[in-house]
Amino acid sequence: MMKQTILTTAIALASGLAIHTAAQAANDEPISPIKPPASINLGMVELGKKLYFDPRLSKSGIMSCNTCHNLSMGGTDNIPTSVGDKWQQGPINAPTVLNSSLNLAQFWDGRAADLKAQAGGPIANPGEMAFTHTLAINVLESIPAYVREFKLVFGKDKIDIDQVTLAIAEFEKTLVTPNSRFDQWLLGNKSALTKQEQEGYALFKDSGCVACHNGEAVGGNSFQKMGLVEPYKTTATAEGRAGVTGKDADRFNFKVPTLRNVEMTYPYFHDGAANTLTEAVDIMGRLQLGKKFTKDENAKIVAFLKTLTGDQPTFTLPILPPSADATPRPTPFK
Amino acid sequence: MMKQTILTTAIALASGLAIHTAAQAANDEPISPIKPPASINLGMVELGKKLYFDPRLSKSGIMSCNTCHNLSMGGTDNIPTSVGDKWQQGPINAPTVLNSSLNLAQFWDGRAADLKAQAGGPIANPGEMAFTHTLAINVLESIPAYVREFKLVFGKDKIDIDQVTLAIAEFEKTLVTPNSRFDQWLLGNKSALTKQEQEGYALFKDSGCVACHNGEAVGGNSFQKMGLVEPYKTTATAEGRAGVTGKDADRFNFKVPTLRNVEMTYPYFHDGAANTLTEAVDIMGRLQLGKKFTKDENAKIVAFLKTLTGDQPTFTLPILPPSADATPRPTPFK
Repeated sequence: MMKQTILTTAIALASGLAIHTAAQAANDEPISPIKPPASINLGMVELGKKLYFDPRLSKSGIMSCNTCHNLSMGGTDNIPTSVGDKWQQGPINAPTVLNSSLNLAQFWDGRAADLKAQAGGPIANPGEMAFTHTLAINVLESIPAYVREFKLVFGKDKIDIDQVTLAIAEFEKTLVTPNSRFDQWLLGNKSALTKQEQEGYALFKDSGCVACHNGEAVGGNSFQKMGLVEPYKTTATAEGRAGVTGKDADRFNFKVPTLRNVEMTYPYFHDGAANTLTEAVDIMGRLQLGKKFTKDENAKIVAFLKTLTGDQPTFTLPILPPSADATPRPTPFK
Repeated sequence: MMKQTILTTAIALASGLAIHTAAQAANDEPISPIKPPASINLGMVELGKKLYFDPRLSKSGIMSCNTCHNLSMGGTDNIPTSVGDKWQQGPINAPTVLNSSLNLAQFWDGRAADLKAQAGGPIANPGEMAFTHTLAINVLESIPAYVREFKLVFGKDKIDIDQVTLAIAEFEKTLVTPNSRFDQWLLGNKSALTKQEQEGYALFKDSGCVACHNGEAVGGNSFQKMGLVEPYKTTATAEGRAGVTGKDADRFNFKVPTLRNVEMTYPYFHDGAANTLTEAVDIMGRLQLGKKFTKDENAKIVAFLKTLTGDQPTFTLPILPPSADATPRPTPFK
């Protein structure tokens, strides 16, 4: 990483250019268009799609990845904190799975390095799907059609949790949302945004929102303190990045959420306390930037944010292979 | 109905033919092939598909029709009795939505005359989606994209629950599963079934299973007593048809379930007590027919039953229009 940075720097200096990404070079903007994934294993995607929708990876037999990261609803569940096994209340807002491959790390506190590491978490979390990796593998191993498909994709006789999380992660890599109106504008269609939306984008940049919400995902690439200028009041107990690093300085540091498809990913913040974009923009302005947006400014920024909704993932609902006689049965009420 | 029967009889007698349906005439079998729906309103189907997948029709915001009638899993939830709002345990096994348009009535006790009448039930059932029709309409009316789509489809300015249930029912009419191997065989492809499967079908007919499980859906067209020869032992409290008719003679009378896609719709019976087809065939033989199938006979019948899996519904996962600022928010934990 360091080596590559040095090399890039050297090339940039040599050619007399400022350092920026290819997309930035094209339009000189702090936000770059979402790109379709460039290298995808399709067999793994098809398998991962089934697993993503398969509630047999939960103890109850009724919760799948799609329960809380619903692909009909912006990759979220649109409630403040999720419902887990036996209707337990989750401690934090379910982040969107859309464009999550672009995050520097997964979960609000970044405790998973990548999508593969994340995918195993909820399955075995007693407050979420409440299963174990061993039991999940037992279920999959008992279903002949899964055994065959894993063998086809991974070339091994045994299914293991690494294959499961790798396949789910590969499917999730396809869940990017290109072609938003904002991206069309970035790519040269200057009539893709209204005057109000362009003014909103100018405000978004000039006010400093873009300091954290930048790049391809308009966020997701840094940890920042929630309540920088003014403390954030919440009843949520999540302490953020400090739980991972053990450093007191990281308390209330959370991964900056992506603003892609933000119109669909309400409610907002790690505690899901803000129901509307108007509310969220107001709070962010005051707490993070020490700035009180006027009603007109707020409306312009919200109008801009709504242009970040891209093409939603389009695919056929997967049909899951049925359980066999020997498949362990779910236990929703035990 | 009576008039038509008389007319048909007259024609049949006049032409010297036995009375049977067109499909039966073609192959002289008590089971006829699933036919694709002949008259469908596509705009209504697309709207109904969204509503079928929309958890905002529930109080919690996380339960949709698809939660218990999961179209990835044979139109069922594959657990003995469903999980309702706040993890309440349902009293009865969720019947498959697949081919449900062919049922003589809906629910195990037939208390809904048709799919439209059924669709409103779970939304307002305190043990299921726990919402009210009024609150559901308030949610839909607050979402501009829904308001426009309802107007497009129904041509009215206001959304009402009849439109909601009509659209869901229209979508459900598309959820038929033609082209099973058994239907291919019925339609003339004599190599579509193995010898064992054909022997299983012969046993299915000769043993009397076909007395109740017949027609296009292989069931769904009569109410019959569960435990006819021998009483059925269950801890479930459902009393069946008697709850609708008030007649003591209808106690434990349930709608005969369809056997289409039965390999996918485990566990079996109104209490979901039978986990496997082997178990279900054994119990049915003893309790309904006074017949103990040998292991070989049972295996043959099970092999036949697995040929009833048809083409599963194929469609793109619907993307739901996002809530607006004014949309009432779900209350999963209140």
